[in-house]
Amino acid sequence: MAQLLMMNLSSVSSSFLVPNTITTNRVSKVSIRSSNTSIRKCVATSSTEKTGYKTGVSRNANMAKLQAGYLFPEIARRRAAHMLKYPDAEVIRLGIGDTTEPIPEVITSAMAMKSHALSTLEGYSGYGAEQGDKQVRAALASSFYADLGIEESDIFVSDGAKCDISRLQLLFGSNVTIAVQDPSYPYVMLKLEKPLATEGVKHISSFDLMSSSKRGCWFGHDSMLTGQAYVDSSVIMGQTGQFQNDVEKYGNIEYMRCSPENDFFPDLSKVSRTDVIYFCSPNNPTGSAATREQLTRLVQFAKKNGSIIVYDSAYAMYMSDDNPRSIFEIPGAREVAIETSSFSKYAGFTGVRLGWTVVPKELLFSDGFPVAKDFNRIVCTCFNGASNIAQAGGLACLSPEGLKAMRKVIRFYQENTQIIVDTFKSLGFNVYGGTNAPYVWVHFPGRSSWDVFSEILEKTHVVTTPGSGFGPGGEGFIRVSAFGHRADVLEASKRFKQLYK
Amino acid sequence: MAQLLMMNLSSVSSSFLVPNTITTNRVSKVSIRSSNTSIRKCVATSSTEKTGYKTGVSRNANMAKLQAGYLFPEIARRRAAHMLKYPDAEVIRLGIGDTTEPIPEVITSAMAMKSHALSTLEGYSGYGAEQGDKQVRAALASSFYADLGIEESDIFVSDGAKCDISRLQLLFGSNVTIAVQDPSYPYVMLKLEKPLATEGVKHISSFDLMSSSKRGCWFGHDSMLTGQAYVDSSVIMGQTGQFQNDVEKYGNIEYMRCSPENDFFPDLSKVSRTDVIYFCSPNNPTGSAATREQLTRLVQFAKKNGSIIVYDSAYAMYMSDDNPRSIFEIPGAREVAIETSSFSKYAGFTGVRLGWTVVPKELLFSDGFPVAKDFNRIVCTCFNGASNIAQAGGLACLSPEGLKAMRKVIRFYQENTQIIVDTFKSLGFNVYGGTNAPYVWVHFPGRSSWDVFSEILEKTHVVTTPGSGFGPGGEGFIRVSAFGHRADVLEASKRFKQLYK
Repeated sequence: MAQLLMMNLSSVSSSFLVPNTITTNRVSKVSIRSSNTSIRKCVATSSTEKTGYKTGVSRNANMAKLQAGYLFPEIARRRAAHMLKYPDAEVIRLGIGDTTEPIPEVITSAMAMKSHALSTLEGYSGYGAEQGDKQVRAALASSFYADLGIEESDIFVSDGAKCDISRLQLLFGSNVTIAVQDPSYPYVMLKLEKPLATEGVKHISSFDLMSSSKRGCWFGHDSMLTGQAYVDSSVIMGQTGQFQNDVEKYGNIEYMRCSPENDFFPDLSKVSRTDVIYFCSPNNPTGSAATREQLTRLVQFAKKNGSIIVYDSAYAMYMSDDNPRSIFEIPGAREVAIETSSFSKYAGFTGVRLGWTVVPKELLFSDGFPVAKDFNRIVCTCFNGASNIAQAGGLACLSPEGLKAMRKVIRFYQENTQIIVDTFKSLGFNVYGGTNAPYVWVHFPGRSSWDVFSEILEKTHVVTTPGSGFGPGGEGFIRVSAFGHRADVLEASKRFKQLYK
Repeated sequence: MAQLLMMNLSSVSSSFLVPNTITTNRVSKVSIRSSNTSIRKCVATSSTEKTGYKTGVSRNANMAKLQAGYLFPEIARRRAAHMLKYPDAEVIRLGIGDTTEPIPEVITSAMAMKSHALSTLEGYSGYGAEQGDKQVRAALASSFYADLGIEESDIFVSDGAKCDISRLQLLFGSNVTIAVQDPSYPYVMLKLEKPLATEGVKHISSFDLMSSSKRGCWFGHDSMLTGQAYVDSSVIMGQTGQFQNDVEKYGNIEYMRCSPENDFFPDLSKVSRTDVIYFCSPNNPTGSAATREQLTRLVQFAKKNGSIIVYDSAYAMYMSDDNPRSIFEIPGAREVAIETSSFSKYAGFTGVRLGWTVVPKELLFSDGFPVAKDFNRIVCTCFNGASNIAQAGGLACLSPEGLKAMRKVIRFYQENTQIIVDTFKSLGFNVYGGTNAPYVWVHFPGRSSWDVFSEILEKTHVVTTPGSGFGPGGEGFIRVSAFGHRADVLEASKRFKQLYK
């Protein structure tokens, strides 16, 4: 087993590594595939030597700015050490933000029915509208935006919020400036083709471990990757400067610090004006949600500066407080905001892929041109609509039975969250988030996130996510995800109590 | 009925029109919704008057370069006139490139089964790999690239070729030059939420009519749109100059003329060097396919110039000649080419959304950096994988039964194609395409495509596509699509014979 895991590790730390600087060398398959040691022996060979041919096309300079996950080897070493040390450990995954509960049957049945219908003359349909099925758009409008002045025609159905963020970047182009929350959602993951088994040491996957690293994009049999949606897509579009290693930030991005000191809402008096402000609430990773008063200030700030807010509300249905579920609950928001959301965390659609973006017709560029018309053009040119089967599922999600079923799934994760919150609170920790999002943000003041991550892994075999993986503002925190099976959450809590009692 | 159609028309020609110049006015809902006249009365109101607020964000200058479909009002008028003149006509649609045959049951069953599985603990899965399921990648490699040196890890599964083209543009960035075939695939469509019924005058949809126009992007209840994938995505990335109205071309794009005179293969001695060469074979709209000798010349041309070929092989399975199905059949192509393809036209997946792109590891930028590593980073950042249900369908497509079923669907369309080819040949026309693609390219020398389109619509109630809609090189041609039900194709042929006997 340890040997098997090492093989996986070695592939991670060798041939699939993307250097963060331009290089003419490609790192070959690692030489220790069958070895039992944690020392990496990477043999670098020049691929240009092999083929002797390079095209004359220059590499996109913006791509070269992207940071590779230079911390991955370190994480891989920690993981390897853990595996070797505790080959029989029952490892529990509370690191990932991926859903674990099955999709309610009322929703999967609708997708199955749509699939079957596609094999009949009457039920077959070809290209759908890029903007999404009219019924789905109408159902989204009435389910989430009733009385908010958002109409069906303002809504663009998509294959998910991450993809829409990228399309929004295309819309804005390279000459805009952006602001992001710090910490913010990094989309840092390693996905395995097949999840490892659910018992014993196999329980830990490189997914968990890698989700804690900063950046990097690998490929090969395992799919290790980073897509820091807001930041990386901005870098790719050429909106930013180079990465500054000393502060671990890109030039020309406004990082808005969110910490307990400011109630996880940026001190806007210290935030410079940018064209675009990415704002995620309820927030991943901190789990905090902005209040009505805070969002009113944000909208006023945007209005004063002539900025456009891109509001990520992918966790809105997790809100249990009376905070706004949509930015469009704030008066005037339709003139300054775009909202993007997703079925992923509501219905377990992370793999099915369905989301939406709202671009109100009231939102105008400085010359008065409607943003929605340009976004529509982007969607028409760069996208061909979400899968019609996923959309059939989306429609079922928004039926009375579907909404009820989604709420049940959400309630389950909320119960998980409460267990985790109660555990850490009972141990005397300052715990944030959890009330309005499936993430618990635990403070370990003065300690390194990485040290805490390692301590927890070492002592409890529970995988969490070090807060600093979400940006400098996350240092001193760990994120505990409430996505997981109940038994695992209960067992993890038991172990946390033993460790920190 | 005529009144209903007029309502639809009026919405098309008014409130959903995107001006091709920057404007501060928004055109309000048309005032003739219940009128029976074809005269449009557009009431322009300033949305800035309504809200009094514009953001300070500048519109992306590249978006402003995109051309709106200024010919749409003209087409809409022709259509309206036809509808009013022949309210009882049995209109047949051979204009569109959308599939009409149901998806084989072996494939839909697999998707239904996957849907159902997602509601079980054992069958549930969350995020998949952005690059696609390992099994799908492996099946694509063995089904289409066996012995071509293309491995599973070179293949990126996607939600379709159009979306991949856009991601490839992001990869290349704004500082590359491109070449496209003229005529080339325009993605010009108007999609209706619900296809009109299949008999009587309802048979004609704005889809057909609008597919014949040049460019334009509308939105509203109907989804009228244009995404000229190669060109428009290039414009959006800032790779081109302004649109030049006199020649109907964008500046800084190399248009490679493909006509009967050069056997629909560009005279490469007259083609300027560009960084990227988009090449579609079998071609849409001309239906021609490049021979092994021609593609060898293309690869040599790219190699000489250090260019990257983006090879669109979405119709490869329609090839009946011995031409290459993949650019990678040409020696050396792995060092100069990317290939993108799709299940859309093989399995009727236009609405299900599944495609793939091959980026060989041998393909290097001028500094030696592997193109595939940057593309992987793009896919990781801007995409979250194709729907797992669509991928289950893709896997079924590539099973022995699935491949057999796909070939049967393709054979059906090939028979349609043959009927159309035989019809026009028997009438003495010079007919191109049809042998290796489901499109027939009929020459009407010296005549305007639009005149021929109108003549055919007027006299036979059959909707075709005017060749000039695909670029200046298409003037004098019409494209007849073989996607359609057999009875319609036979009836259309009968009418063509009556018209041109």
